[in-house]
Amino acid sequence: MTTPAPGSPELARLSLNQKTTQRWSVPEAVEGCVQRGIPAIGLWREHVAATGVEASARAVREAGLRVSSLCRGGFLTADDDTARREALDDNRRAIEEAATLGAECLVLVVGGLPKGSRDLDGARERVRASLEVLAPAAADHGVRLALEPLHPMYCADRAVLSTLGQALDFAEPYPPDVVGVAVDTFHIWWDPDVRAQILRAGPRIATFQVCDWLTPLPCDVLMGRGMMGDGHIDFAPLRDAVAAAGYTGDIEVEIFNDDVWDADPHAVLDTTARRYVERVLRA
Amino acid sequence: MTTPAPGSPELARLSLNQKTTQRWSVPEAVEGCVQRGIPAIGLWREHVAATGVEASARAVREAGLRVSSLCRGGFLTADDDTARREALDDNRRAIEEAATLGAECLVLVVGGLPKGSRDLDGARERVRASLEVLAPAAADHGVRLALEPLHPMYCADRAVLSTLGQALDFAEPYPPDVVGVAVDTFHIWWDPDVRAQILRAGPRIATFQVCDWLTPLPCDVLMGRGMMGDGHIDFAPLRDAVAAAGYTGDIEVEIFNDDVWDADPHAVLDTTARRYVERVLRA
Repeated sequence: MTTPAPGSPELARLSLNQKTTQRWSVPEAVEGCVQRGIPAIGLWREHVAATGVEASARAVREAGLRVSSLCRGGFLTADDDTARREALDDNRRAIEEAATLGAECLVLVVGGLPKGSRDLDGARERVRASLEVLAPAAADHGVRLALEPLHPMYCADRAVLSTLGQALDFAEPYPPDVVGVAVDTFHIWWDPDVRAQILRAGPRIATFQVCDWLTPLPCDVLMGRGMMGDGHIDFAPLRDAVAAAGYTGDIEVEIFNDDVWDADPHAVLDTTARRYVERVLRA
Repeated sequence: MTTPAPGSPELARLSLNQKTTQRWSVPEAVEGCVQRGIPAIGLWREHVAATGVEASARAVREAGLRVSSLCRGGFLTADDDTARREALDDNRRAIEEAATLGAECLVLVVGGLPKGSRDLDGARERVRASLEVLAPAAADHGVRLALEPLHPMYCADRAVLSTLGQALDFAEPYPPDVVGVAVDTFHIWWDPDVRAQILRAGPRIATFQVCDWLTPLPCDVLMGRGMMGDGHIDFAPLRDAVAAAGYTGDIEVEIFNDDVWDADPHAVLDTTARRYVERVLRA
């Protein structure tokens, strides 16, 4: 297919997660989205900090872009008091940033096992306890938290939430507009229960992120996310389940991949728009 | 602790999965087990083929070792008829080998997506259909199949069974002594539902395999299995769940790891026995 033109109704729900164009600053990514007719953007705190929160907020507002997510808070599993207090403080700042940016949600990657610890239950318990602090703070700022289950290969070092069902269990004590979940195809495509859990998620789906699963995995398994169509994921059943769950928000393309990061970001946006329509929308 | 002496009752349930001493032939691994006082062995078909099935069976029988498992059959997801027929034939041969060797079970790694396919449901359906053929064949030979859920990072290329719960669903139509499951700490430690599913497994637990989860994962993620104590897994709760499920069989140490494979196999057996007692039995 040819690349869908800016203004095409097929792009109406596409969001560029700014990690996909890692080398671009917030103003550059905003400008790229405007040129390419992509109406929404997922921001990252490291990029926002480099530009400044207020300046970033102004850039997206003046460009008329929606901010589909802010990535990310979390890392809530520390087992010593100082580190735990610092993590909560950092998440409070992230909530304020999300409010200033008008982000649809603040994505939380909850953290792995603390160094040297094997206490998986304890780490999960501290995530639960942290939410008791952060959910009210988020509600005060009108910010929605999005718990992100990460692929189980990151359980030890990045996120002790590994399935959508588990993330929903953690979210359950809170209203859906305060604690939602992130549905990311890369992390959950393998789950035999994935469609049932997406339906269960219903109004808790705070963001829908897409990218493909590549094999072989690269040496740095964080970088194994591929452009839709380059890997093994069939997006149609996941897209349909998310729609059946009632989600009508933006669909973010978030790709961590050295080849994608090395490419010209404008070309990456073209590919993103084309593959999104071809592999996610129309598939 | 000092290395437990041969004859120690603490070694009574220890089994050496022969992958842990990859460079040893069947006779060498059998001799190593005898010297080290390890009363059981998990055999691999490639090693058995090199020695010969009858000669391997004689070696373990004359040494008085139990054969806790034969690894492995499976790869049942092919979507063309020829490949599918070949896979079933190969599994029938594996069943015969398991019978000849007197193995407690034949471990099945079910296979990933066929090349170029994204039809995960279809691949799973073909596993289900293959079991309808293989379970009666196994029963005829008095062989028990052990469905092994592999870590979800292998879903695309190695096993579309990713959780113990899913493996149990696949086993359910068959008697537990015909189709059981393999409980391997490396593959399932992250699962928030792991203890409930181990209890559910009950008499279907056909083998209990232990090794650790290392970070960072090596470039070849197949080789990320570590000696118990070198990684992130807390073995005690898994050991307790397996015991509560009623499993009293052998506990296999199965390690794919370049450093372990490069080491002197006798030293590896010493470490295996010591870490097994320290990290699995007494932890």
